[in-house]
Amino acid sequence: MNNDSSLQITAKLKAIISSSAPGTRLPSTRSLVNEFHASPVTVQKALQTLTMQGLIESRPGIGTFTRTQAVSRPADYSWQSTALGSARTRRTSAASPLTGPNGDSLALHHGYPEPELLPSRLVRAAINRASRSETALTCPPAGGLADLQTWFARELAEQTIGAVTPPNAKDVIIMPGSQAGLSSIFTSLVGAGQPLIVESPTYWGALLAAENAGVELVPVSSGPHGPDPHELSKAFERSGARMFYAQPNYANPTGAQWGVELKGQVMDVVRQHSAFLVEDDWAHDFGIESSSAPIAATDDSGHVIYIRSLTKSVSPSLRVAAVIARGPARDRILANTAAEAMYVSGLLQAAALDVVSQPGWKTHLRTLRSQLQSRRDLLISGLYDAVPEAQLELIPKGGLNLWLRLPEHIDLKRLTLDCAQSGLSIAGDVNWFPAEPTGKYLRLNYAGPRPSEYHDAARILGEALHSQ
Amino acid sequence: MNNDSSLQITAKLKAIISSSAPGTRLPSTRSLVNEFHASPVTVQKALQTLTMQGLIESRPGIGTFTRTQAVSRPADYSWQSTALGSARTRRTSAASPLTGPNGDSLALHHGYPEPELLPSRLVRAAINRASRSETALTCPPAGGLADLQTWFARELAEQTIGAVTPPNAKDVIIMPGSQAGLSSIFTSLVGAGQPLIVESPTYWGALLAAENAGVELVPVSSGPHGPDPHELSKAFERSGARMFYAQPNYANPTGAQWGVELKGQVMDVVRQHSAFLVEDDWAHDFGIESSSAPIAATDDSGHVIYIRSLTKSVSPSLRVAAVIARGPARDRILANTAAEAMYVSGLLQAAALDVVSQPGWKTHLRTLRSQLQSRRDLLISGLYDAVPEAQLELIPKGGLNLWLRLPEHIDLKRLTLDCAQSGLSIAGDVNWFPAEPTGKYLRLNYAGPRPSEYHDAARILGEALHSQ
Repeated sequence: MNNDSSLQITAKLKAIISSSAPGTRLPSTRSLVNEFHASPVTVQKALQTLTMQGLIESRPGIGTFTRTQAVSRPADYSWQSTALGSARTRRTSAASPLTGPNGDSLALHHGYPEPELLPSRLVRAAINRASRSETALTCPPAGGLADLQTWFARELAEQTIGAVTPPNAKDVIIMPGSQAGLSSIFTSLVGAGQPLIVESPTYWGALLAAENAGVELVPVSSGPHGPDPHELSKAFERSGARMFYAQPNYANPTGAQWGVELKGQVMDVVRQHSAFLVEDDWAHDFGIESSSAPIAATDDSGHVIYIRSLTKSVSPSLRVAAVIARGPARDRILANTAAEAMYVSGLLQAAALDVVSQPGWKTHLRTLRSQLQSRRDLLISGLYDAVPEAQLELIPKGGLNLWLRLPEHIDLKRLTLDCAQSGLSIAGDVNWFPAEPTGKYLRLNYAGPRPSEYHDAARILGEALHSQ
Repeated sequence: MNNDSSLQITAKLKAIISSSAPGTRLPSTRSLVNEFHASPVTVQKALQTLTMQGLIESRPGIGTFTRTQAVSRPADYSWQSTALGSARTRRTSAASPLTGPNGDSLALHHGYPEPELLPSRLVRAAINRASRSETALTCPPAGGLADLQTWFARELAEQTIGAVTPPNAKDVIIMPGSQAGLSSIFTSLVGAGQPLIVESPTYWGALLAAENAGVELVPVSSGPHGPDPHELSKAFERSGARMFYAQPNYANPTGAQWGVELKGQVMDVVRQHSAFLVEDDWAHDFGIESSSAPIAATDDSGHVIYIRSLTKSVSPSLRVAAVIARGPARDRILANTAAEAMYVSGLLQAAALDVVSQPGWKTHLRTLRSQLQSRRDLLISGLYDAVPEAQLELIPKGGLNLWLRLPEHIDLKRLTLDCAQSGLSIAGDVNWFPAEPTGKYLRLNYAGPRPSEYHDAARILGEALHSQ
């Protein structure tokens, strides 16, 4: 007897139930077995289905009855565990850097600049203009609006040096944010079970995307000056990896900016292993004492896949990023993006392009530079006073974060809870390491609200630390 | 000798090159082998790297020289083929239903309603209001704006019947379009190499997402009245699948709407196999002579995963969809979405919610219903006159498409080209079948521009057909 018979029995019993008064007793399993010439298992399956649909109820030891009335049952989704099997992604997905500032609390955990640091007037005016444009009602091409592709290509072209052929607009793929870009690159160019070299520590969102894509992480230690190219070369040889994901400028979380020489050495390693460098230029607009100098501007052989997002610097609502890639790699990323998202809202693309095309955008970036500098320095001075035992290995020349090393005995989760109780949000529950964390580190964001209270924030952190 | 040595040689040669005049001859490979105590292969690798960087050039039979001047080289990305291996997705990604109407040509190929059929005044006003709201500058929660989640939950709750517990706001996950929803569901709940049952024919975008996720397609034939539940049951048994993707209301492309009895039978089969039904309610707002009656409204046991997009009915620019799921399935979809996209622009969410909350939205839908009816009937009458040999198995009670069967001898690609030459766009190059197409079918969309010329469109199609 197969499920098909069980299906027929279900249908026949439904007919009986619908013509019976509520509370009517159904024939016993044994008599149903005889009546339908079915196995007891098949009959039981049919009865279970009807029970789950709320049409019958069984009273143990008495029998099975049609339902007297609708009863609110507690939801039982336990069958899904069998259907789904074990889960792939174990990393916390809704991690705290995404949680916005929580009402009155001081927030050093967030990954985005507060609205105060955004070009809000430009953003609102751009959305307003876009609402009246054709893009408000039409569907853009899969690769993106041509004008926005051109803008991204030109920005990188302006930084290319020497004999390097600059990218063109067709090399640009517009993405709904850089997370989608990373996910698409890891899925389409690496694939499940294949190795991907990453810095350790590195951006938690990249680790999440990589784990979700099922790739095997190969860590290469990276400190305040970036990775050691010889270690990188060994990692390529040992793992057979064909891709290295890195943030050469103002790495998140360490703040490291690679020197010119290291950038060249890494590219030599990457080329020698016929591999890709995925260059995440997340903080392109957040230079403070230097500017982001993309490695992508030195390569025209398709070895660098460049990601650049406007989400953090323009507005979280204008969720637009660009991936610049050449050759078959570009085609695969585009095919994967089309399959996963079809296209990015033309409205968001038009509004983002409008913002970065305004003269006010350059002015905004200049102001932002000095705002970030004074916030960074304010937080550092607070930490020197209140948390002298914490070690700041690098004063970052750009980006939004300080990377603080705490004494080994510190329990980061307890620290996070203690700070929260005193009104300070920190992200001690986020794992920035592809393998085990190699120390007790805390990323502190200096782009959150109320910088005037950074000394209070440092004091709360210090008190929570000293209580351990 | 390993790549690490090659790296050292590259570095040393770079030092030599930088201190030499352009056109300087480098030492021979043999002397470099001796100098660096390296193998010839290692030295060759170093020279190749420098050549690719444009620093040296080799003149066959003469020697290797530092570059005299920057030379524009033709791009060579062939190394990527080795690095990437063979591609996974073979289905055309930038398929024609996404291509917008092309200037002056008549378009029956597009998948989206033309701007004429959209609530354009409501959309522009909503975006404008959203530009002034907090959502223009902030980052929404990963699951979506609470008010929009509530709206989607309530819409489905209003259709639930009998003793079914309606969904709540937390069961709703806001997605950047239904394509992202499908991709996320197939990736996180089925997974690469695992079976997924689909109707045949079915939505090409779903096939694309499934193929991109690497799932194994299990087709179940589905005609003008939907699939045979006994065949469906057998497909579950044979394949061991745990999921059935279907469009019970106004299926794209066939236009089929399942009867109430079939909906119940399919749910019985799905429950008996402890499986999921992914119900794609893509045409919820496009009822003509009936309304979309979601199966999700009859289930509270977590067996139905419901997808409902506003992209097609509100605006392609407000790319917002909802997935409603319960139990662990919901958690996995949310984790996957967070890993792939982080969040959906709060601006788009706020604007979409604004539109569907206006009294004008209901009025718009009533007008749209009669517009779709007259367009559908106009196209049908044109086809009856000009293409009598084409067979329309079903006059759809909703949706945006006619599903036309053409004589077996027709070459669809040639037909598409011939029509294009006469100024009519049709999508004869799209494959709606998970396996081989079982006939020569054409999907004709009656929501494109210039319905007054549908008779001309039918005439062009007829002439192109008769020429074969």
